[in-house]
Amino acid sequence: MDAAEFRRRGKEMVDLIADYLENIEQRPVYPDVEPGYLRSLIPEEAPEEPDTYEDVVKDIERVIMPGVTHWHSPYFYAYFPTANSFPAMLADMLSGAIGCIGFSWAASPACTELETVMMDWLGKMLKLPEDFIAGTHGQGGGVIQGTASEATLVALLAARSRAVRMILASDPQRPETGITSKLVAYSSDQAHCSVERAGMIAGVRMKKIPTEQSDKYAVQGETLRRMIQEDKAAGLIPFYFCATLGTTPSCAFDHITELGPICNAEKIWMHIDAAYAGSSFICPEFRPLLNGIEFADSFNFNPHKWLLVNFDCSTMWVRKRSDLIGAFKMDPLYLKHDHQESGRYFYTDNSLFRSLKMWFVFRMYGLKGLQDYIRKHVELAKEFESLVRADQRFEISADVVLGLVCFRLKGSNEVNETLLKRINNGRKIHLVPCQLSGQFVLRFAVCARTTESRHIREAWRLITQLAEEVMQDVTKLKVRM
Amino acid sequence: MDAAEFRRRGKEMVDLIADYLENIEQRPVYPDVEPGYLRSLIPEEAPEEPDTYEDVVKDIERVIMPGVTHWHSPYFYAYFPTANSFPAMLADMLSGAIGCIGFSWAASPACTELETVMMDWLGKMLKLPEDFIAGTHGQGGGVIQGTASEATLVALLAARSRAVRMILASDPQRPETGITSKLVAYSSDQAHCSVERAGMIAGVRMKKIPTEQSDKYAVQGETLRRMIQEDKAAGLIPFYFCATLGTTPSCAFDHITELGPICNAEKIWMHIDAAYAGSSFICPEFRPLLNGIEFADSFNFNPHKWLLVNFDCSTMWVRKRSDLIGAFKMDPLYLKHDHQESGRYFYTDNSLFRSLKMWFVFRMYGLKGLQDYIRKHVELAKEFESLVRADQRFEISADVVLGLVCFRLKGSNEVNETLLKRINNGRKIHLVPCQLSGQFVLRFAVCARTTESRHIREAWRLITQLAEEVMQDVTKLKVRM
Ligand SMILES: Cc1ncc(COP(=O)(O)O)c(C=O)c1O
Ligand SMILES: Cc1ncc(COP(=O)(O)O)c(C=O)c1O
Repeated sequence: MDAAEFRRRGKEMVDLIADYLENIEQRPVYPDVEPGYLRSLIPEEAPEEPDTYEDVVKDIERVIMPGVTHWHSPYFYAYFPTANSFPAMLADMLSGAIGCIGFSWAASPACTELETVMMDWLGKMLKLPEDFIAGTHGQGGGVIQGTASEATLVALLAARSRAVRMILASDPQRPETGITSKLVAYSSDQAHCSVERAGMIAGVRMKKIPTEQSDKYAVQGETLRRMIQEDKAAGLIPFYFCATLGTTPSCAFDHITELGPICNAEKIWMHIDAAYAGSSFICPEFRPLLNGIEFADSFNFNPHKWLLVNFDCSTMWVRKRSDLIGAFKMDPLYLKHDHQESGRYFYTDNSLFRSLKMWFVFRMYGLKGLQDYIRKHVELAKEFESLVRADQRFEISADVVLGLVCFRLKGSNEVNETLLKRINNGRKIHLVPCQLSGQFVLRFAVCARTTESRHIREAWRLITQLAEEVMQDVTKLKVRM
Repeated sequence: MDAAEFRRRGKEMVDLIADYLENIEQRPVYPDVEPGYLRSLIPEEAPEEPDTYEDVVKDIERVIMPGVTHWHSPYFYAYFPTANSFPAMLADMLSGAIGCIGFSWAASPACTELETVMMDWLGKMLKLPEDFIAGTHGQGGGVIQGTASEATLVALLAARSRAVRMILASDPQRPETGITSKLVAYSSDQAHCSVERAGMIAGVRMKKIPTEQSDKYAVQGETLRRMIQEDKAAGLIPFYFCATLGTTPSCAFDHITELGPICNAEKIWMHIDAAYAGSSFICPEFRPLLNGIEFADSFNFNPHKWLLVNFDCSTMWVRKRSDLIGAFKMDPLYLKHDHQESGRYFYTDNSLFRSLKMWFVFRMYGLKGLQDYIRKHVELAKEFESLVRADQRFEISADVVLGLVCFRLKGSNEVNETLLKRINNGRKIHLVPCQLSGQFVLRFAVCARTTESRHIREAWRLITQLAEEVMQDVTKLKVRM
């Protein structure tokens, strides 16, 4: 395929994409296929001679679409959103064509530099403390990571390296081996599973801090303080705390204004994971949720979740870039260049031109457009919450702060499991569950860019209709017994 | 921007991309900007109200292009190639629109399944042993990682977890803490810097195995065996060896037919990093370089380097998927689903629909087209090698096996450094150096898809012209002294 053919095929693909997204709500949101469905639809080996492009395109509907979970359908309410916008897609097209690998400044100066400036733009939208803004002379700054999971790990590794350095500085006789096995990290029992995995990877203890429904599933300062004291008494070295703002199960918020000072006093690295909720902090009315950021060493959230920047774009800020440089830097000759210090200074050396899509999105929406977008999703969630609250058979399981509503039928876990199964088997809307205080709970997350009030009401109509059926079946069963 | 406007803008972007790639050789391959150049060209904050799309597009030439290192220019000979092809770009457009996040089978069955099948297709093109092919019942199989660095780390972590399990199984009384500090991993002193970094992240010793020019910079079985014995005698536990096929400095090949049996006998996990060279193994004439794969536990290379699949696409195969599942699996309720075991079973849970671009590329080129592409690059490298060999002032510094030529002026490191500086300051062609046995060496890697013989000859003309100048300056300097 040469450039001339690409011009033609590219334009067809633009139309195919626009058609797909314009008509997405006609498709079943959740696919009706069995594991292994795809293998039998295509050959067992790559062709020797080229296929025609027509055949490849035909196979999109024949092979791919039947197995796609349509994350951008306005009937998709599962997990958390993943972003999708036209400006981001245009930027990604350009990024793919430039196709530079940004592992150092010299490898593509524009790539490194736009990233730093876009991270400053976004940091200012969030009203982050000055310390996190790179500017021309700052010690801190931001970098794009692939995912929040990666950011959590990077922060943990930087914290581990800082802790080992501090311990050796205060006790130069101490052997370095063995320190890691004394280190202990903390996070909420509501934290994302990637936090626990980061602990496994780094080879350190990761303790889960218990939370309570009565505290709205937020980590309490008192609990953290007690665990730290106990661990220190047992000869362990607390060094890292991952706070969550907007937990995965119920969008709960740890009290970082209370937790931050404890971490600072104990020289514990506080990382903040706000993967989903972070985008909302660009709105003044949600910004208070980030109060306490001034105590953090690092902060991360995913514009690729809720800020219209397509995957992958997870934005991480650190107070001191040198903490990361110290933890990861490698200098082989083939990567050396004249402007060494201006390169990317973080773990993920390689990246495409991911800042391009931030630039396109921020400019094409403007701050106001982005704020409107967040507000609309929160309003839709509130609308859904009202529908649930108005129905005596249901209950709300956690405070609705942003775009997530946790709810359930008053009744057993089994009844709720059955309800969810029927919802998903209907394939008209898609939800996933969570567990809160031993209860099986349904999560309703407003996800798609194009979700409107009518979709929310249709979803609720379907849910109540299926709930009716489930409850009738339960009654029949009881009568029969 | 709505779908209608995207149709228009998307088509304009397709033309912009085609224009860029068709005319890329007119641009200086290496940018002439100072660090910090970009910040002053754009506002300090995101706009409140949207900018116009026209303004954004205008800024591509004004702000971005002056700072781009043009990796796809036929005059780009630095690092190793990064792939760029039209079919891959089309697939990426579609992938961005579908925008599903493939962290489990249910999150998008097509995404998980096409990946497994494409990894089988590619595994068969490489004639990998059956053990690495998933098929419908295999224990092994392939998965796409973001980068080779990630694959090396994933393999190391799986190896660490297997080693700890084996040690505890043979000695259940032994305390788990402390085992890691006894583990020792190995790689060549020619290995990519990401191998050393993987060791830092995993918190294990990573020993560099010395190599010699006389052995063509390949790790020798004898050396590995001796180091293992010494380490065991010192109470350490050897558990991981990362072999390199096609090293970054000079494209050297470790002797895995000799090293593999040693690793197997010692129950050491052998990972093979063939980041660049791996693509060539689809050609029967280069496949012998992979002999010894039958001893490996895992194998990885980057189609996003040399197989026309745009970044990111690093393909990793393991003999036993369960080794990875054991090392990374996490099961929160919000990720549980009916077909749990069919999900992705690896560390990098999140990904876009990266297999789509493999599918498009393999079908649009066919195996023959891909082989032709590899062969053409190798021929161009041989052509460059001949030009160097025909010139008495130069020498070849390492065997030319694939698309990389390491060469230098006979003379001091300083002279060669000066030559390279002038080459890059000319901005017409771009190369990076490496160090081989204390010598400063120039690396000439055939990179772009559109590189032809005429570009190679032009590059050589420029190099010899600059060499002439450098040598005259050196002579003048000597005369003056
Ligand atoms: C609180 C939280 N942290 C981390 C993650 C993981 O994000 P990523 O997929 O970018 O690693 C999620 C995903 O939903 C999340 O909700
Ligand atoms: C041998 C080798 N391994 C690993 C890498 C790193 O690859 P990646 O950028 O995909 O992490 C390279 C890059 O050139 C390489 O040459």
